[in-house]
Parts: sequence; structure tokens; C-alpha cells
Amino acid sequence: MMDGSFPPPPKARSREALTREAFEARLRAIGAARYHDRHPFHARLHGGRCSPDEVRAWVINRWFYQSRIPMKDAAFMSRVEDPALRREWRSRIENHDGSDGAPGGIARWLTLARAVGLDPDYVASGQGVLPATRFAVEAYVRFVRDMPLLDAVASSLTEMFAPKIHADRIEGLLRHYPFADETSLSYFRTRLSEAPKDVAFGLAWVLDHADTAEKQDAAAAALTFKTDVLWSQLDALWGAYVEGRVPPGAWTPGEGLA
Amino acid sequence: MMDGSFPPPPKARSREALTREAFEARLRAIGAARYHDRHPFHARLHGGRCSPDEVRAWVINRWFYQSRIPMKDAAFMSRVEDPALRREWRSRIENHDGSDGAPGGIARWLTLARAVGLDPDYVASGQGVLPATRFAVEAYVRFVRDMPLLDAVASSLTEMFAPKIHADRIEGLLRHYPFADETSLSYFRTRLSEAPKDVAFGLAWVLDHADTAEKQDAAAAALTFKTDVLWSQLDALWGAYVEGRVPPGAWTPGEGLA
Repeated sequence: MMDGSFPPPPKARSREALTREAFEARLRAIGAARYHDRHPFHARLHGGRCSPDEVRAWVINRWFYQSRIPMKDAAFMSRVEDPALRREWRSRIENHDGSDGAPGGIARWLTLARAVGLDPDYVASGQGVLPATRFAVEAYVRFVRDMPLLDAVASSLTEMFAPKIHADRIEGLLRHYPFADETSLSYFRTRLSEAPKDVAFGLAWVLDHADTAEKQDAAAAALTFKTDVLWSQLDALWGAYVEGRVPPGAWTPGEGLA
Repeated sequence: MMDGSFPPPPKARSREALTREAFEARLRAIGAARYHDRHPFHARLHGGRCSPDEVRAWVINRWFYQSRIPMKDAAFMSRVEDPALRREWRSRIENHDGSDGAPGGIARWLTLARAVGLDPDYVASGQGVLPATRFAVEAYVRFVRDMPLLDAVASSLTEMFAPKIHADRIEGLLRHYPFADETSLSYFRTRLSEAPKDVAFGLAWVLDHADTAEKQDAAAAALTFKTDVLWSQLDALWGAYVEGRVPPGAWTPGEGLA
């Protein structure tokens, strides 16, 4: 179609849905192939090869992702009619924002920010976040706001793959970086206990609701999209702070120090 | 704010708006500092140092941007009540999509795709586009759909800086690449005559409507946002195809050839 117009879609052949077990395996295979634990930045970070400024750049940019998670979850709940599902989902927001007195994941992330020498108010301001990080994270929030609930829940299932990376990270950071201790890494330690509950619920919900081949494809596509959201954040970090091509307006070493 | 909550906003001091001339100079300074003609990928491309596969990767990813421009313009027109403004804006869609018989910018881009050895249907399918490119381009379409009309028009003003980069590109590609001729480069040649009309209108509209310091700040922020949209696409291209860190699922050399 030299004018860029689209060819007619191929006739959809009706297919059998995969069994629950086979579909779960399909979702796990997406993580095995595409989850960001395979990105070279994580090998560098966990292996102790990141400079202090590379760690700071990671903390600043990953903060933006953390800070948008409760907004993503609120966008999801804003579309859920079932009080039971909203009630179940609510704990995700509580985990990140905290409850009166008790700090949440965002506060724990800012504790990490302070431990690596950053001013927590600078990090919380979102200044200096890489544009590519913003675009990816905002694409995720909008995906959850705009897409069918099944796709939205499926996009959260990268949590299935998170406990391993968090455990590796705690071990690697403790071994290699002076800033790392149980206080500065409390975000990851806490996620180790929080994530499995969310995963168990989200995975069961997706396996229950993806009851046709078409819905299974949509859920797999949503999880794939989410792996792109995570991967592209590390690509941007690598280009800007490992390769040293910091885009105009992004954080530069020396800014935002405590 | 160690819990990540925001400090109260500073008292807004009411400021004088800049004069028309001073405000136009402020907008042009944003281009001088941040437009993607300053990105190393363009020096590489125009200087003849891109491999055929680097050129193909650029054509595939830049196609995605081109393909979303008429959708962006339709999103803008969908919010404009003034028939005169919609009528003025309509030519942007016609320029890209063409009119019966006459090819538009998207068809001309696919002519370039074929000239560099790609299957135009592969390029038009959007397969293999870098996720970071999708996130940036979709952020632009949504910005125009969601933000005030002034911000939306201001975000189009990167066109002010395009004629120079198109002229440099035509000259550089013709000098350095065997695929380059007046047919394969017709997209850029045509933009040289189309863009100035759009720029003259868009710039005058923004200068007319940004009549307070706050609106001038918003217009400047919108133009800055747009420079980020363009820059981050080249960063992603560089990381994937110059540095060779192709993210999962993105185009790999050899795919999509004619």
C-alpha cells in the first residue's frame, strides 16, 4: 500500500483458548524473554559497577515510576464497578502512599535517595527526570486508564518477575555499595513481602477472565507492553548516564545533592 | 518532605508579559538550545557516517512519527470551535495524507523507505518501531488532545526550526548516499515549501494568544516538551542501532527488506 493505507485484516480464524496452565506459562515466557532483569544496566548496578552518579540517576528516574504507580492504581479503581475488586486493589495505593504515620513505598524510596546523597525534595520534585522516562511511565498510566480492565490488570503482572530482581538487588547493593543497609534498602525488602499478595491476586484474576484466545492475546500484549515500559527506562538511563549523552534539561551530576 | 508530599506552591508574583518580539526570541532560543538538529545522530546521518541499517532504522522509526502527525492534527481540530481555525489547520492533514490522486507526506516517506531497501508495507505496519519512539510520539498526540489550544499550537512550533534541518538533510543525503535522489527525498523537498506557511500561521497565532506571562510560560513549556519528543526519538535510535542495544521486539537488520 504505497500510500500507507492499511491492507484489509486477515480473516480471524477462531482458535481454542489455552488452558489455564498453558496460558500462565505463556505469560511467564514473556517475562523470561523481556523483563528488565535482562537489561545490562541491572547487571551493572547489582554487580557494583555503577558509579555513584549512575546510581543517583537511577534513583531519580526510578522515583518517577514509583510516584506514578498509585496514580495508575487510582486510574484503575476509577473504572472498577465491583466494590470487592476496588477493596482488593486499594492496598496497592496504601503500600505506596503509606497510611497515617506509617511510611509507604514512596517515602522509602526517598530514604534511598537521601542515602545516595540526593536531596529528597529535589527527587520528589521530578526535576531532571529523563523525558524518555516520563513518556514511558505516562504511557503506562494512560494504558491502565484507557484499556479494558483485563489488559490493565495483565499489565501489572510484571510484578510476577519482581521478587527475584529485588532479592538480587538487595544482595548486590549490600555487597558493593557503602550507602546500602537495611534502612536505605527498605523499599525493596518491603516489596518482597508486599508483591506476592498482589501477584497472586492479579494473576488469578487474569487467568479467570482471559477465557478466550482473543482475550489471552490481549493480556499477553498488555504484559509485553509493560515490559517495554520498564526496559525503555533503563535504555534511557544507559544512554544518558553510562554513555554520557544527557539530553537537554535532564539531571546532570552535581545537581540535587543533599 | 520525606513522605514525598509536595510543599505549598510559592506565591505567584504577577509579572509583565514579554513583548511580541521578546517572546518570539524566547521561543527561538528554545529551538537553538534543544531542537534535535543538535543531536549527534543527525550529524552522523547528514555527514554520511550512517550505515545502511542505521538509515533504515531511522526511516522505520521516523515513519511512526510521520504517521501520527495527521492524527495529532485531527485531535487538535476536534477541539477547535472556530471554523476559520479548523479550515486553516486542515491543510496539515491534507499535506500528510494526500488528496485523491495526489500523494501526501506519508506516501512520500514510504517512497524513501523503498529507496533504502525496505518493504513499504512493513514500514507502514509499524512493526519493529522502538517502544521509546511509540511512547514519545503518543505523548505528543495526547498532549495536543488534552492540553489548552495555546499549548497545542505552541507544541507545533518546532516547525520553525525544520526548514534548515531539511535543507541540510537533502544536501547531506544527496552527497553521501546512493539511494538519495529527488524522488527518494521528495518528502523533505516538499516540506521545504509546506512548512513555512504552517509556521507563519502557528507562530502568529501563539504570539497573538500568549498575552500574559503565564500563557507565555505555558507556550514555552509546550515547545520545550515537543523538543523532548523529538530528541528522545533520536536517543532511542542511537542506543538501539548505533550502540547496538536493540530492545526486545524492535526491528533488527535484515527484517522488513523489499
